[in-house]
Amino acid sequence: MAYANEKLADAVDLTHHLSELSKRRKTSPLKGMQKYMTKPGTLMLAGGLPDPSYFPFASIGGEAMAPDSYALTTDKPSSSGPLSWLWNIFGASKDKTTPIVIPRFPTGPNELSLADSLQYGPATGVALLQQFIHDFAERVYQPGYKNWTTLIHVGNTDGWSRCVQTLCNPGEVILTEEWTYPSAVALAAPYEVTPVPVGMDAEGMSASSLEDVLANWDEAARGAKRPHVMYTVPVGQNPCGMTMGLQRKKEIYEICVKYDVVIVEDDPYYFLQEGAYVPKAERKSATVQDTQDGFIKSLVPSYLKVDYQGRVVRLDTFSKTIAPGSRLGFFTCNPVFAERFERQGETTTQRPCGFGQALIGQLLTKQWGLDNYVRWLHGLQAQYTARRDALVDGILEGFDSSLSYSDGSYFAAGLPVYSCFLQRGARKKQLGRVLSFVAPTSGMFVWVTVHFDGLPDVPPQDDPEAPRDHETRLWVRFAEAGLLVAPGAFFASTPAIPRADRGHYRIAFSMGPHETLKKGMGIFTKQLQAYFDDALARGA
Amino acid sequence: MAYANEKLADAVDLTHHLSELSKRRKTSPLKGMQKYMTKPGTLMLAGGLPDPSYFPFASIGGEAMAPDSYALTTDKPSSSGPLSWLWNIFGASKDKTTPIVIPRFPTGPNELSLADSLQYGPATGVALLQQFIHDFAERVYQPGYKNWTTLIHVGNTDGWSRCVQTLCNPGEVILTEEWTYPSAVALAAPYEVTPVPVGMDAEGMSASSLEDVLANWDEAARGAKRPHVMYTVPVGQNPCGMTMGLQRKKEIYEICVKYDVVIVEDDPYYFLQEGAYVPKAERKSATVQDTQDGFIKSLVPSYLKVDYQGRVVRLDTFSKTIAPGSRLGFFTCNPVFAERFERQGETTTQRPCGFGQALIGQLLTKQWGLDNYVRWLHGLQAQYTARRDALVDGILEGFDSSLSYSDGSYFAAGLPVYSCFLQRGARKKQLGRVLSFVAPTSGMFVWVTVHFDGLPDVPPQDDPEAPRDHETRLWVRFAEAGLLVAPGAFFASTPAIPRADRGHYRIAFSMGPHETLKKGMGIFTKQLQAYFDDALARGA
Repeated sequence: MAYANEKLADAVDLTHHLSELSKRRKTSPLKGMQKYMTKPGTLMLAGGLPDPSYFPFASIGGEAMAPDSYALTTDKPSSSGPLSWLWNIFGASKDKTTPIVIPRFPTGPNELSLADSLQYGPATGVALLQQFIHDFAERVYQPGYKNWTTLIHVGNTDGWSRCVQTLCNPGEVILTEEWTYPSAVALAAPYEVTPVPVGMDAEGMSASSLEDVLANWDEAARGAKRPHVMYTVPVGQNPCGMTMGLQRKKEIYEICVKYDVVIVEDDPYYFLQEGAYVPKAERKSATVQDTQDGFIKSLVPSYLKVDYQGRVVRLDTFSKTIAPGSRLGFFTCNPVFAERFERQGETTTQRPCGFGQALIGQLLTKQWGLDNYVRWLHGLQAQYTARRDALVDGILEGFDSSLSYSDGSYFAAGLPVYSCFLQRGARKKQLGRVLSFVAPTSGMFVWVTVHFDGLPDVPPQDDPEAPRDHETRLWVRFAEAGLLVAPGAFFASTPAIPRADRGHYRIAFSMGPHETLKKGMGIFTKQLQAYFDDALARGA
Repeated sequence: MAYANEKLADAVDLTHHLSELSKRRKTSPLKGMQKYMTKPGTLMLAGGLPDPSYFPFASIGGEAMAPDSYALTTDKPSSSGPLSWLWNIFGASKDKTTPIVIPRFPTGPNELSLADSLQYGPATGVALLQQFIHDFAERVYQPGYKNWTTLIHVGNTDGWSRCVQTLCNPGEVILTEEWTYPSAVALAAPYEVTPVPVGMDAEGMSASSLEDVLANWDEAARGAKRPHVMYTVPVGQNPCGMTMGLQRKKEIYEICVKYDVVIVEDDPYYFLQEGAYVPKAERKSATVQDTQDGFIKSLVPSYLKVDYQGRVVRLDTFSKTIAPGSRLGFFTCNPVFAERFERQGETTTQRPCGFGQALIGQLLTKQWGLDNYVRWLHGLQAQYTARRDALVDGILEGFDSSLSYSDGSYFAAGLPVYSCFLQRGARKKQLGRVLSFVAPTSGMFVWVTVHFDGLPDVPPQDDPEAPRDHETRLWVRFAEAGLLVAPGAFFASTPAIPRADRGHYRIAFSMGPHETLKKGMGIFTKQLQAYFDDALARGA
């Protein structure tokens, strides 16, 4: 079977990637009706569509924030936007908002309405939002071939779930970073699709490790054929926070061409590219030019940009840029895969929730428009930069630290790698570094490594339920002291990845006032020190 | 493995119904965190939750209709509620509405907020809505055992999709009515799960046909083991419109106990129980007592009511009672299945869209409450009754008809079965009845049978794409004349079901003004007559 659209000059046949399950999905019989459905004057007594007068809302709407609610300077982030902890007390009266309304019936030929948004309709979603999404992908990602397309979904978990069922057969394996998003692994497991970890460095997935895995694949020893699908989070990697530069993406893409691998790029943190961490003492107020094209240009390009064969499936979500409860996102990919994803959507989620599509659609297409949405994203970037700074500051305040900078082989030359020591002479000398981390340039998380190699083994426990590893025992200590962080073991792609002499914790800086981040890191430092003290005292 | 909850006295082990796919779904590792997450004062730096101040809505809301917007009398339905075609012209100014608002942060301890609804959260959905759903199921369905539970989903297509993956292994077959909802079959096919049709009568699925299929199951001849899952639409059956009475449900339930079959009851039309059709000339204005308990009591009971073993999975949706775009519904079932459905939700849709949950939640739990929602459903019932009457009136006006009444063996004794004849002497005598239908007592559809047995075969066609069967040829004729109805073949559970000498059409009376229904049936009559005239002229 040939590639679907001849406009793609370098036509590559990707249909052989389709799973048996996906091939069994039938095209809807409604196709034959379409030409009549769009004919004006046709009386529609075919579908079981409730009359819009039976929708119990005459209109819906909201108070929409201004797209420039958040300033672009990063030195005083809290004062530039609404303060959530103040809001809690005083209400939202200080918001700069504008009312938006979606009426039951459209007020003009190109207007949103409940009669459309809340009705049954194609799994491609509300037309205006569909167009916005396509325009947005074109402007921001600039895919490297012509006949790419976009398709709405209900969030990247749904998106990746559709990828697994569309591309993978039972018994197949997928390439992932060695530390990865647990739900991505968990949702594939029931379909008997399991991960093969690829090594990582400060830019995320390592090209040489990938080449190594693929070149030396031993089907008999592995019990599976060489993987043909990759799952990757290239920006603000979850959980480790690394961000991959364009050069690395090109290298990995070429390896995927060589071994015919489809790249699924799960990129929820793309617009939270905070740039290099600057230590507090050296930090200066940055005045940022407010141009949308400048902001877009400053972002590391998507895999789509280097994709000249249509082998990238990009997953975007509004979870981090509007709200997680949007349950709205989109694929950008080749039309062969998109058609299969659409069929799958038709028989599971159908079109995404109409209340969400109407409100988000009105906000993006009517209230804000493309430029203003990009301005909103730029404002969020500044907010997350300040949050990242606050968390890293908070860690560094509790330890003696030494700093080394990554060389130019990494995405951002000068990426700070911190080694942290306990602030007490004897222990410090005895233990060496107890904590190390790379200050992330994107995303929501700092991934810290705790070095347990200076500690005696965990002693035998009377309680059979008691944790037997340092990582969990220290995590419980944090939790009992009122600090919840995510334990590293959650994110191990396979059980072989964690090591007994190291623990990892993913610390999120996405939520709460900066004071909370600081207070949390105070608990972190105190409990870590106490854990080491106790263990050493016990071991002595 | 024992049944999960000991409160169920007649403990029946249903775990053996779980599919291999479902068993491979892991429990979330977050379980261990739960006790800390609910502890006041804990600093939450574990999850990647955006701060609610970054949600671009300070509030959302809408103009909610009054729960008594639609009168309970069925004689003058249009004047009792808003007229959609007038609205189109004059706007919604005549609506009796009240504004509702969901603020960013809760205004009290038991209030909805965007900070909760639009955030990540458990797949069980917003707590207030979850409670409402449980209370609603308890009041209306009264399940026959104690430890039943409810779980939110994103509509019955999603619900049934989760059932297939949770209960069925590849190669297994499911029991369905011989005519059924096409998506229910289409979504199961990729998982290699196919339907086994069960015969129907005027009450829907036939108990004797079911017993026959199960008792005489020949595994070798069928190439599959005896089915252990049934998919059924017992009220306002899609597409045929039949409604099943309590006695029949008891009979079918007992057969399912005997053969250990799980019943999946897809019941979107449950509240559209319109009662027996009364011919226009005999119709009188009905004054209906406005009591919620009376309305609930008037509805045929759900399978849940006769379920003493937890073998019923009921699927409810807000698609027909709020709006299809709600993408919201719920399971009512035993806790063993519910737990698996929840795990599946976590790794696909996650919790349903927060915009929808907030607006529907506020409407149902705060603005209306349970009694008023039941009043709203009662009003809808009256509306659909008037629509059913208008459509059936419209058909009967175009034909000479004779009427026979079903005897007491059917759900509603006196259910009218119409045989229709062309209104011209010679043709009438030559052909006998050309059309027959049962006036439905529930739902959105009239299912008509066109009798082609008096016509010559379809002549050979020059165009290889041209349809070769009467049903499709007449359907095209309707469509070309500006009337879209659904062709019967869409709904055949297997290709063996349709017959060449009969055609079927599903005609929806759910949408548009009553004038449209009448006009549509005018086209229907005219085109049907012309089709018969042409065929007879050609055959002569």
